[in-house]
Amino acid sequence: MKKFEEKTTKTTPIYDGKIVKLQVDDVMLPDGQVAKREIIKHPGAVAVIAVTDEGKLVLVEQYRKALERSIVEIPAGKLEPGEEPAMTARRELEEETGYGAHSLTYLQTFATSPGFADEVIHLYVAKDLYNIDNKAALDEDEFVELLEVSLEVAQSMVADQRIFDAKTAFAVLWLAAHLENNL
Amino acid sequence: MKKFEEKTTKTTPIYDGKIVKLQVDDVMLPDGQVAKREIIKHPGAVAVIAVTDEGKLVLVEQYRKALERSIVEIPAGKLEPGEEPAMTARRELEEETGYGAHSLTYLQTFATSPGFADEVIHLYVAKDLYNIDNKAALDEDEFVELLEVSLEVAQSMVADQRIFDAKTAFAVLWLAAHLENNL
Repeated sequence: MKKFEEKTTKTTPIYDGKIVKLQVDDVMLPDGQVAKREIIKHPGAVAVIAVTDEGKLVLVEQYRKALERSIVEIPAGKLEPGEEPAMTARRELEEETGYGAHSLTYLQTFATSPGFADEVIHLYVAKDLYNIDNKAALDEDEFVELLEVSLEVAQSMVADQRIFDAKTAFAVLWLAAHLENNL
Repeated sequence: MKKFEEKTTKTTPIYDGKIVKLQVDDVMLPDGQVAKREIIKHPGAVAVIAVTDEGKLVLVEQYRKALERSIVEIPAGKLEPGEEPAMTARRELEEETGYGAHSLTYLQTFATSPGFADEVIHLYVAKDLYNIDNKAALDEDEFVELLEVSLEVAQSMVADQRIFDAKTAFAVLWLAAHLENNL
């Protein structure tokens, strides 16, 4: 899958932060012309479509500084170095919602912003949820509120843009397709 | 929707590029603690779920430097300053596929990476497509290949990760839900 490959002739590091890195690559295009590509490096993330026994979607509301507002999302979090995505999924589900899952299934992986970032999200489906008594703590700079909503309420939250991010929009469509088939 | 608001106490600009800007904000958290937020500013984009009269999804394959591979996506592109998103949708559809659309409907908007970027994508559905004789040219650094695939083929491309980005993964789920209802 290297069609129209853009070969790097030079990489200029710009910023090396806590979460993202930024670099500018000089590339040679398929026609021999040159161009610059601004690229964000990100460790990758997981997200979890967690469904209760009643068919409700488990969501968290949190403030997203980049958007300057709070939005409602499926539980998610960044991969830690060396951590298996399925472990990250279980950890984030527990930290953000207090739930464990007897059933955790890998669904698919997608890139969030392929035009400028290498971030990918590994999506999991969690079912047969149970409460964890002494749940792991959130990161010290995280503030989230737990919600559990029916498909209909989730769809209304898409309509009024309380649900506003791609992974959660995807999750709502996924739930609509799979609730009909009894998950 | 300001729950858990993080107030900015200082903004440090890091990079001002052709497509993205990077800044680091010092913020005050709801508990009074301080933290840093790395934020990518992006002009926003549109994407188009274009469906032919035969019910096929119009896709483009292109190289994505950030991922170092080519992927298959729905037509999309960045907003130009002052351009209405619907105009951008028509322009990108024409440039990338050669199609005009007698029917173009706004579907929804989502943020792609709310954890670190303000990018939003405005999604449109294009139907009643027609060929534009003298189509507008691609940007000089763009190389794309046109594909038109059935829902079944699109789903197989999700499975083998030729389709690999969030907006196109969403589009495939959307098509599956709406083809059943005759769009």
